[in-house]
Amino acid sequence: MDSRPVTVVVDAVGGDNAPSAVLAGVSDALAKDSGLRIILTGPAEVIEPFAAQQGDRVQTVACTEVIEMDEHPANAVRNKQDSSIVVGARLVKEGKASAFFSAGNTGAAMAAATLVMGRIKGVQRPAIATVVPTAGPPCVLLDVGANADCKPENLLQFAQMGAAYATVVLGVIGPRVALLNIGEEPTKGSQLAQAAHALMAERLPHFIGNVEGRDVLAGVSDVIVTDGFTGNVALKLLEGASMILLGQVKDAITSTPINTAASAVLKPALNRLRSRLDPDTYGGAPLLGVAGVCIIGHGSSKSTAVASAIAIAAQAGRGGLTEQIAAAVADN
Amino acid sequence: MDSRPVTVVVDAVGGDNAPSAVLAGVSDALAKDSGLRIILTGPAEVIEPFAAQQGDRVQTVACTEVIEMDEHPANAVRNKQDSSIVVGARLVKEGKASAFFSAGNTGAAMAAATLVMGRIKGVQRPAIATVVPTAGPPCVLLDVGANADCKPENLLQFAQMGAAYATVVLGVIGPRVALLNIGEEPTKGSQLAQAAHALMAERLPHFIGNVEGRDVLAGVSDVIVTDGFTGNVALKLLEGASMILLGQVKDAITSTPINTAASAVLKPALNRLRSRLDPDTYGGAPLLGVAGVCIIGHGSSKSTAVASAIAIAAQAGRGGLTEQIAAAVADN
Repeated sequence: MDSRPVTVVVDAVGGDNAPSAVLAGVSDALAKDSGLRIILTGPAEVIEPFAAQQGDRVQTVACTEVIEMDEHPANAVRNKQDSSIVVGARLVKEGKASAFFSAGNTGAAMAAATLVMGRIKGVQRPAIATVVPTAGPPCVLLDVGANADCKPENLLQFAQMGAAYATVVLGVIGPRVALLNIGEEPTKGSQLAQAAHALMAERLPHFIGNVEGRDVLAGVSDVIVTDGFTGNVALKLLEGASMILLGQVKDAITSTPINTAASAVLKPALNRLRSRLDPDTYGGAPLLGVAGVCIIGHGSSKSTAVASAIAIAAQAGRGGLTEQIAAAVADN
Repeated sequence: MDSRPVTVVVDAVGGDNAPSAVLAGVSDALAKDSGLRIILTGPAEVIEPFAAQQGDRVQTVACTEVIEMDEHPANAVRNKQDSSIVVGARLVKEGKASAFFSAGNTGAAMAAATLVMGRIKGVQRPAIATVVPTAGPPCVLLDVGANADCKPENLLQFAQMGAAYATVVLGVIGPRVALLNIGEEPTKGSQLAQAAHALMAERLPHFIGNVEGRDVLAGVSDVIVTDGFTGNVALKLLEGASMILLGQVKDAITSTPINTAASAVLKPALNRLRSRLDPDTYGGAPLLGVAGVCIIGHGSSKSTAVASAIAIAAQAGRGGLTEQIAAAVADN
């Protein structure tokens, strides 16, 4: 375990279960990582009593404003400069912390990170990545929603940024990168996919070509690149499918009294599987391409999701994710 | 059960398991539907011995050519005019049958249907639809691969064609139609999705707005419309996810000897679920917008898939799918 000092700013009031789930997640993360330091942003009355119990590894920066989950992102960031999200991004920008985590308004966290931290030099469009559990090693999928319309050059950069993330956070050396497409041959797919394939084949050292929808969970690639429209549909489809399929399995195995008795034995194993597939287990999604580590949590994050997102933020900070991305993109 | 006479042309040599799976599927379909008649296309030595055993409900049109699974679709259709696929499409065009089914080269079947049958008047781009099992009623998803790049007007027509299919084949009166998008609000999504939303809101009587990836399996809509790139990724992702998740459930419930004993009791229920999720159970995908019913099967179709695809072809023929689509599209 890497125990070098690292500081993560945490938005104490972001998410549907804040502040209790966030503060519980902070406690868990601190217990697991002796080098971790936390700066909490949020209203003084929320963060100061908690920090007082935690000792000197938790600092606070009190804010007078809160961006609600349903506020218009850009307007909220513009008008609420003393909110937990904007102040959190600013602390990273000022070098007081290596990474920022929020499970609050996703659009506002993205807007704050982009506006306050700025983009890494050379990055055209930041992208949101997510780590998908597969039948093999986990896979970084991006963009999952930051850019609904993309150009081929954007997809090349997503590939470079996703590969840097796979190396720093998942520890993959020379990650295999694939393009999500609707056929295996280079000439298949939309105009965007065809042009992106040509560009990636020319410029990416570990490009393995196209993968199809059915390959996403097969573990054939360490990074899968797509536009933010397709990626967002794919991610939400997977989340929905996992929960509905497991629900149907549960219905099937409790359809008779004998089945129910038999399935009681299997409950622990099925619960472990459910938790492996639960997005909460994986915590947050990084916004890649901004000049500072920014990890965004699901609004529904519980304490385990918060703790794992903070651990990822710490690892990305220690591993120099921002510098790795800057170097990858500068190769162009 | 509708027992009016209807004739379906079946490509006897299409698919990885042809001709045995196709011929077995034909037998099953005939046994279940007393009004059904079949015309088989394929090499004489394959189809004639089978037809001789079946009596006068099975006719044959022998062909001298076969389009292989991996041939270039347009070239194959152009060069092999006496193939089972081209001849099958021609029999529908000539009014000798109401519908055509092939589990062969998908691109060639699409090309033959489009070139030989032609498009329905007013239809810009034919689309491939598929019926997705959901937590509620089944849902027609289209386009799942015919058109990687689309215009908003294409998506409007996909909606009209998908609604006609839901009515004729699934029996849904006034089907609810949704647009697959990455947010619920009309202003969310790609430029294509935003423009399509505006057009559909203006022109479709049963438009229910945007749905997200997580809603696809929730059963909230009878028809879900998207471009052929997103739809193909979504369909293949679902197929892959179902099989991988069920595999993981199997691993989980057989991870210890006690679990294995308990899970033996559950095997029949889980097998039923697996078969419900297996694409084979649903048979074929219709190519909507061509001037004749054309149902395309998975290359891997087994006899159950062939039988259910033939049943769907018969229903679409009896229900006047082509006329219903012509009427829906003419409303523009």
